[in-house]
Amino acid sequence: MPLNIAVVVGSLRAESYNRQLAEALVRLPAAEGHAFTFADIGSLPLYDQDDDRDQAPGVKDLKALISGSDGVLFVTAEYNRSIPGLLKNAIDHASRPYGQSAWAGKPAGVIGVSIGAIGTALAQQHLRNVLAYLDMPTLTQPEAFIGWKDGLLNPDGTVGEGSAEFLGGWMTAFLGLVEVHKG
Amino acid sequence: MPLNIAVVVGSLRAESYNRQLAEALVRLPAAEGHAFTFADIGSLPLYDQDDDRDQAPGVKDLKALISGSDGVLFVTAEYNRSIPGLLKNAIDHASRPYGQSAWAGKPAGVIGVSIGAIGTALAQQHLRNVLAYLDMPTLTQPEAFIGWKDGLLNPDGTVGEGSAEFLGGWMTAFLGLVEVHKG
Amino acid sequence: MPLNIAVVVGSLRAESYNRQLAEALVRLPAAEGHAFTFADIGSLPLYDQDDDRDQAPGVKDLKALISGSDGVLFVTAEYNRSIPGLLKNAIDHASRPYGQSAWAGKPAGVIGVSIGAIGTALAQQHLRNVLAYLDMPTLTQPEAFIGWKDGLLNPDGTVGEGSAEFLGGWMTAFLGLVEVHKG
Amino acid sequence: MPLNIAVVVGSLRAESYNRQLAEALVRLPAAEGHAFTFADIGSLPLYDQDDDRDQAPGVKDLKALISGSDGVLFVTAEYNRSIPGLLKNAIDHASRPYGQSAWAGKPAGVIGVSIGAIGTALAQQHLRNVLAYLDMPTLTQPEAFIGWKDGLLNPDGTVGEGSAEFLGGWMTAFLGLVEVHKG
Repeated sequence: MPLNIAVVVGSLRAESYNRQLAEALVRLPAAEGHAFTFADIGSLPLYDQDDDRDQAPGVKDLKALISGSDGVLFVTAEYNRSIPGLLKNAIDHASRPYGQSAWAGKPAGVIGVSIGAIGTALAQQHLRNVLAYLDMPTLTQPEAFIGWKDGLLNPDGTVGEGSAEFLGGWMTAFLGLVEVHKG
Repeated sequence: MPLNIAVVVGSLRAESYNRQLAEALVRLPAAEGHAFTFADIGSLPLYDQDDDRDQAPGVKDLKALISGSDGVLFVTAEYNRSIPGLLKNAIDHASRPYGQSAWAGKPAGVIGVSIGAIGTALAQQHLRNVLAYLDMPTLTQPEAFIGWKDGLLNPDGTVGEGSAEFLGGWMTAFLGLVEVHKG
Repeated sequence: MPLNIAVVVGSLRAESYNRQLAEALVRLPAAEGHAFTFADIGSLPLYDQDDDRDQAPGVKDLKALISGSDGVLFVTAEYNRSIPGLLKNAIDHASRPYGQSAWAGKPAGVIGVSIGAIGTALAQQHLRNVLAYLDMPTLTQPEAFIGWKDGLLNPDGTVGEGSAEFLGGWMTAFLGLVEVHKG
Repeated sequence: MPLNIAVVVGSLRAESYNRQLAEALVRLPAAEGHAFTFADIGSLPLYDQDDDRDQAPGVKDLKALISGSDGVLFVTAEYNRSIPGLLKNAIDHASRPYGQSAWAGKPAGVIGVSIGAIGTALAQQHLRNVLAYLDMPTLTQPEAFIGWKDGLLNPDGTVGEGSAEFLGGWMTAFLGLVEVHKG
């Protein structure tokens, strides 16, 4: 069954390694037949609870995307040993107003790439705490702490040969989790 | 010796409990004689590494404030079991470009208020990981997980009688840490 | 369908609040018809990787209990803002040798009681990171950060009236998760 | 001024990478002139609060060692994405009874080695939360997430050439922190 997956990339840099990784992931053979829609989180305002009753159009769009999805794929950079503020800001927006979170119940996958893989591991450790609170069943294993290296991606932006098996297996596991929760 | 303290409040809501707490803290007798300047983090853009060479005026102002301070007082809300995206966004901005972080070496205090005190405790657990990476010696004890309650603050915005001793002791400990590092 | 649940209590104190809570939880109406077996983690040695090929009888018993269960209920104290060493020691034992973890794939619930509920919340934030690595799908919501108070338990050790609905709902959610994974 | 440093190694394996690293660290030129005493945490019982009034001899020894030290060097393995239970057990013991923690105020350094360096990074992220609660001013930078590799240590157990500068700098920074707090 084709699944609708929302993709949230935790980096705004044009040449972001994580954006490149996200775009490669959705082109994996394991992802074929499913629909992946990238969320636009870069144009959101900073979250202010006073706006809860009148959410910005971008926030409404984000919430509609998440609500209409079968699962959420987080591909995130790490800044300062935690998740980027810009990603947390998007999470905070779509979790509000209280009781109307768009995230609740959506299965999630967490993956990321950083130089040396340590950074993304530390960020993911925090992100998992957040996703648990948001009531998002999150893929446990395999963990995906990707270290950036030559050949991770091919020049055409697809996943390189050396990483295809691992990343393909990860995608299959993630989509399997989403499938189970779609029921 | 009078100390210059930058105050960073992790909430934009006008009636924010944490803003109220921050404004009460700097009016404590223990704070007298020191200068507290509130950072404006609500007008910052979302952090984008592509802007590192041309930081927005608000980012430059934040960095100048932090760089010119003797220490930083974080008073933070909790959203979704971690620190607010808007606070992390400010932290990310002032930590960049690589090698030019404004936070490095500045002593820090972490405090916050939430309904039931659990939320702020969980957010502070993550924030401490970030501050360690930023090379900020951070007050260890006393912890300050404040639960919002009637009488925490007086109608005139000062700290209520029942909390004056604890919060005054906390402020004294924080300023003592800053003093030590000013040397 | 009757479920076999292994119960792991993170405290050895005879009058431990968490042991009392655990014993009350398994007597909830919501738990009726299911089998709960308490693990003995207090007689385990300290984990030493050199013993991986010759695990102590207590370790083998623990692994057999976990392997034979449909799910695991963790009821844990907090020491020093994380999980007790004795609980982590049990987790470490049953995760070994490499590739022969007894925890893998077992659904888990995490609950705990502490004075003020802050302690257990902080410990659970760490425990969730561990359980994710152990490949244990863990109940996300409702969170169960229980504050010890008069009336939490009745004199006969059952759950008090004021907490019966919340704890009963929590148990139902946990058993529902286990049921789903039993398939 | 010669400093007394207690060394706590979070692994019991005889050939433990972390024990090897610890023994190499104290032989660095930067460590010369200071006294390093290794704590024996492998013979401690599992912590049971009921024993608080009658702590085991090994616990008393550990507390005496820590109390008599100027600072504590933690060299820790990672198990299951957090600190080993055996290390946490030692920390729990020496923090008790309530109000008589041996750790309070002692400056600390945290370092560790694991395959790939990711494991130790994740464990250290948790350990820092614990040390903050224990009121231990902890070295912030440089972080020391060491990846095990050929040549990290020489055949005679000293630090290899390629790592001598980084590890020497780390030791100097740690001892500098201890010195400051000794006053």
